[in-house]
Amino acid sequence: MAPVMDLARSPLALPFPDMPPVDGVTLRVARADYKDWDRADLTYAELAEGTALAGVFTRNVCCSTEVEMGREQVKLGQARALIVNAGNSNAFTGYRGREAVEQIMAQVAHHLDCAPSDVLVSSTGVIGVPLPKDKAQHGVAAVLEATPCSWEEATHAIGTTDTFAKGATASAMIGDTRVVLNGIIKGSGMIAPDMATMLGYIFTDAAVEPQFFQQCLSAANERTYSCITVDSDTSTSDTVLGFATGKADNAILSSFEDAGADAFMAALEDVCRQLAHLVVRDGEGATKFITVSVTGAKSDESARRVGLAVANSPLVKTAIAGADANWGRVVMAVGKAGEPADRDTLSIGFGGTCAARNGLPVADYDETPVAQHLQGDEIDISVDLGIGDGRATVWTCDLTHGYIDINADYRT
Amino acid sequence: MAPVMDLARSPLALPFPDMPPVDGVTLRVARADYKDWDRADLTYAELAEGTALAGVFTRNVCCSTEVEMGREQVKLGQARALIVNAGNSNAFTGYRGREAVEQIMAQVAHHLDCAPSDVLVSSTGVIGVPLPKDKAQHGVAAVLEATPCSWEEATHAIGTTDTFAKGATASAMIGDTRVVLNGIIKGSGMIAPDMATMLGYIFTDAAVEPQFFQQCLSAANERTYSCITVDSDTSTSDTVLGFATGKADNAILSSFEDAGADAFMAALEDVCRQLAHLVVRDGEGATKFITVSVTGAKSDESARRVGLAVANSPLVKTAIAGADANWGRVVMAVGKAGEPADRDTLSIGFGGTCAARNGLPVADYDETPVAQHLQGDEIDISVDLGIGDGRATVWTCDLTHGYIDINADYRT
Repeated sequence: MAPVMDLARSPLALPFPDMPPVDGVTLRVARADYKDWDRADLTYAELAEGTALAGVFTRNVCCSTEVEMGREQVKLGQARALIVNAGNSNAFTGYRGREAVEQIMAQVAHHLDCAPSDVLVSSTGVIGVPLPKDKAQHGVAAVLEATPCSWEEATHAIGTTDTFAKGATASAMIGDTRVVLNGIIKGSGMIAPDMATMLGYIFTDAAVEPQFFQQCLSAANERTYSCITVDSDTSTSDTVLGFATGKADNAILSSFEDAGADAFMAALEDVCRQLAHLVVRDGEGATKFITVSVTGAKSDESARRVGLAVANSPLVKTAIAGADANWGRVVMAVGKAGEPADRDTLSIGFGGTCAARNGLPVADYDETPVAQHLQGDEIDISVDLGIGDGRATVWTCDLTHGYIDINADYRT
Repeated sequence: MAPVMDLARSPLALPFPDMPPVDGVTLRVARADYKDWDRADLTYAELAEGTALAGVFTRNVCCSTEVEMGREQVKLGQARALIVNAGNSNAFTGYRGREAVEQIMAQVAHHLDCAPSDVLVSSTGVIGVPLPKDKAQHGVAAVLEATPCSWEEATHAIGTTDTFAKGATASAMIGDTRVVLNGIIKGSGMIAPDMATMLGYIFTDAAVEPQFFQQCLSAANERTYSCITVDSDTSTSDTVLGFATGKADNAILSSFEDAGADAFMAALEDVCRQLAHLVVRDGEGATKFITVSVTGAKSDESARRVGLAVANSPLVKTAIAGADANWGRVVMAVGKAGEPADRDTLSIGFGGTCAARNGLPVADYDETPVAQHLQGDEIDISVDLGIGDGRATVWTCDLTHGYIDINADYRT
């Protein structure tokens, strides 16, 4: 999506982190002028030969050409370049949209002397308008000649309605070798569960077999991007790609049996969680960051679904916006989730204070600490279902006038 | 739920209809003072001996005592009285909530000299506070002595955040006998699909076997209450009850083979649809009434789910609020529904004008008539999936600042 108004920086924004270089990755940006704006909107990442590729994608069945092609490319497991177009999602644009993507792939492949399938393309912005091929061609030509840029510049260039640039970094020891993982992401609305996510990219110098890299990214996705929601709406273009250049020259990772694989997985999940949280922190109109912890569910997956039912409930989200300890709305949301639950074993808490236990309001419940907690901008809701060992944590933001402001007047 | 502010009458409100008497039904209201307010909040309907009962209820697993008991009472198929408490939903209140309901049933049963199971009780309002037994006792005593009241007075007394009284009436010929069906309903938020509905009551003088009455009400529910949504949140107390006094002395209906059964079913569905529409017209913050028509789906049920995905999408609802013909958001919502769909056979229209056909924007699409249509307050969205014969119609309202105003400051 593309900005149509000067959006104020989210009150939940975090500063862009210091991100070290990743050996084998070079970033460049240029202006394709996909919209009538004064900014870079085409981003290019050049990747060393031998870079391993992994990816997760939206489950929206009306997905874009970029997503359809990306799914195929991930099966091949290798990449030499990434192009990100901002301002036009190229979704629902039929053969003309596909031609534009193929043109970009061919142009970059010619420059790098690689296979077109080694060139990944993502696009984000308005649905239903084919990506203009002439602008793409000039933009790609310009970006291939541009001087390398910083992580923060590249992150700004992939953004649309984002009010701040979102990056995260971590490192891990594989044997004696320290590997770096840098991630950048864009997204603030049309963010929903049960899918991959917005547009996110993780770059590492680690040497990882593509299949194992995919296994790690899918697992991290389950516990991070698939556990956030802003507005329950699932984009047609959501994509997270991982690129591992192998330039760190560690002993290549191919399974969790390998020394350092656990550390690599932990660092990857750390970066993914940081990025997922940043998307929530830039949720359209968000003023509060909400963590919903569900325990005692039938299974972890059931816990995740209950957590998302709470996190997606407009009545829960507006109650938090109003700093209202309305635990009855949490009960309602648990009950509508369609998951196993028992009214009489259910407990609800805010900020560590239990408001209802075993199906009844807590005797002598003192709302004072809860009211104080809800005045802050980091809100914890805990739900214990009391019927099993399943658990999950889900993150969302509140629903405010800001969301209406941004979305009721998007294209005009 | 209970009003905490002076809510302006919905701009989509309709006048209360002229409703004829229904032989065998007497309505009375009184003040139980469940909240600190200056209004009747306890409603009583006395029903003739031999009244047949039918009902549909919320699917929220954290349902109220009233719903649990009502489900059992409906199996018995008979009723002598209905009590509706407004201002306190009595949900999530454990044994104390149950005691209050049993007390009301016993008190009314004693007065009427009937079985307690012949007395139906509904409650609506804040969750988690047991219905105060003393207030209920005084209120019931007062209502049993009150003078009969009008349909409109009773409808006001069952309301909470409602901004207007919602009633509907229809009639049908069974043989030579004209029977009357009157319905009243309350509800404006926490309205969601896949459940029975808000609190609605349908009274008829027709003679109908309870099992057939239930069959008719369940079928009507599938095409009316289960096809509306305001905010995707499903209440713990939603209930629709039907009462058939038999005082019209028609030949009793026991199956669709009976003469007049089709006419009765049509009139019942008419009343249910009118009432369902009125709830949407009073949707919290609503300024536009939206009809989503889905055709070409794999099945009718699949069409209903796709329709509800569109109707529940915050991005679609805010686009309509902003009179924005953003059909891309409709595509997104169709794609996230989790139902069979094919991007390349999908068509989307607004107000009868096709915006996208077979997966592509319509060539030379003129947005003028669409823009004009979206300025009105009755909006039609059509979705053709192009893969089957399934169809459904779903109704909702837009998502506006009014919804945030009402719900971000509900209890304070």
